[in-house]
Amino acid sequence: MTPLRPYKKDSETSYTLGAFPTMELINCRPELVEAVYLHSTFEDSAGVEKRCRELGISVQSGADHVIQRVSPKENVFVAAVFRKFESELAPAAPHLLLDHPGDMGNLGTIIRTAAGLGVKDVAIITPAADRFAPRTVRASMGAIFRVRTRSYKSWEDYAAGFPDREVYTFMLDGARPLDTATRPKSRAFTMVFGNEATGLAHEYASRGTSVFIPQTKDVDSLNLPVACAIGMFVLTRE
Amino acid sequence: MTPLRPYKKDSETSYTLGAFPTMELINCRPELVEAVYLHSTFEDSAGVEKRCRELGISVQSGADHVIQRVSPKENVFVAAVFRKFESELAPAAPHLLLDHPGDMGNLGTIIRTAAGLGVKDVAIITPAADRFAPRTVRASMGAIFRVRTRSYKSWEDYAAGFPDREVYTFMLDGARPLDTATRPKSRAFTMVFGNEATGLAHEYASRGTSVFIPQTKDVDSLNLPVACAIGMFVLTRE
Repeated sequence: MTPLRPYKKDSETSYTLGAFPTMELINCRPELVEAVYLHSTFEDSAGVEKRCRELGISVQSGADHVIQRVSPKENVFVAAVFRKFESELAPAAPHLLLDHPGDMGNLGTIIRTAAGLGVKDVAIITPAADRFAPRTVRASMGAIFRVRTRSYKSWEDYAAGFPDREVYTFMLDGARPLDTATRPKSRAFTMVFGNEATGLAHEYASRGTSVFIPQTKDVDSLNLPVACAIGMFVLTRE
Repeated sequence: MTPLRPYKKDSETSYTLGAFPTMELINCRPELVEAVYLHSTFEDSAGVEKRCRELGISVQSGADHVIQRVSPKENVFVAAVFRKFESELAPAAPHLLLDHPGDMGNLGTIIRTAAGLGVKDVAIITPAADRFAPRTVRASMGAIFRVRTRSYKSWEDYAAGFPDREVYTFMLDGARPLDTATRPKSRAFTMVFGNEATGLAHEYASRGTSVFIPQTKDVDSLNLPVACAIGMFVLTRE
């Protein structure tokens, strides 16, 4: 049984905390699960144990101390250890490309939003917030197990694998406003968003159609999950 | 000089932490400021002191211990005490109505997004997250000082003051999908969003046009700031 240990970025495994993300993991990616831990007061222990047995997953009941150690302050009743994974992005589908996203809560929220809006392919240029950190997984509400994510070292690294796509780069000084009538020519398009504090580097303006989300001067900028949500909602409408 | 004390919900004052929200307060709502506190290492002390003098605002330099007491863990260099306020909502403008929003971070982000998308009137049905709590103010990046907010006891309490408006209620089981072509008939319309966990009560379906944001079955729901952002962006386009 793989132990549940405090998370380290360079570890080959991470964990989910909470019933919802843990069930998303078990149902969507059972092959990645190393172990499931249940608190003695968890209401649906029998159901989860049955599901794990069906899938051949190790499960430990009464794991109160184990769970407590990684989540001392919160009421967590279920946790699971999973192996980190890379996915192949689908070439004919819309991609969300995040360039150096910095905040784990934001990254999780963006992944959840992408899954909700049908954008199932998310590319991340590193260095970036850790997509497999427990905090990111939790902010995603387990949606990290429903989308394909892959990390890249640079724009060139990503573009080499996906050379002929329509690209929309979201920049505060973009050339065109994002209009609700904007429609990509095909489903093979990529939406690019930059880091929370610094946005996208100027070079991105020439890597596709640079667009801005019309906004008042009353705010410095929209926050990153909000900007991604608006961009994905508009560009994926048919 | 009004002291900077740990925040209490029933206090008549609250405070800003950080240079950006504090400057928004000083510039947008100088009449509400009771006192400004500057840390001895703050870079722009001279500039802020000058601005406060021009506006007749009390300012204390070298207030390291005072700031430290309300923000022990963070690097905060500027703080300001302000009086809480109610605004009159503009009758001919779009309103965002939040029914029992539960999370201060979400509420602040939503207010920031509203300000960014030009929705300057925000109604809040209580009980709700405290819009003046330091955490909400900070999540709003000071946008709380740029929009008009008002609290109401119920839908009826709000609707009595604004009887003839077009109303859009955002509900997971809404009657119509939110479409990028949806356009209110005039600017006097209201967008209604429910609590993070419970959404809007069923009665809201008959209080206007109930709409849903099309989303996949891969997520339970979109998070509240994301849903508000998409709704406001689409419905305020002209």
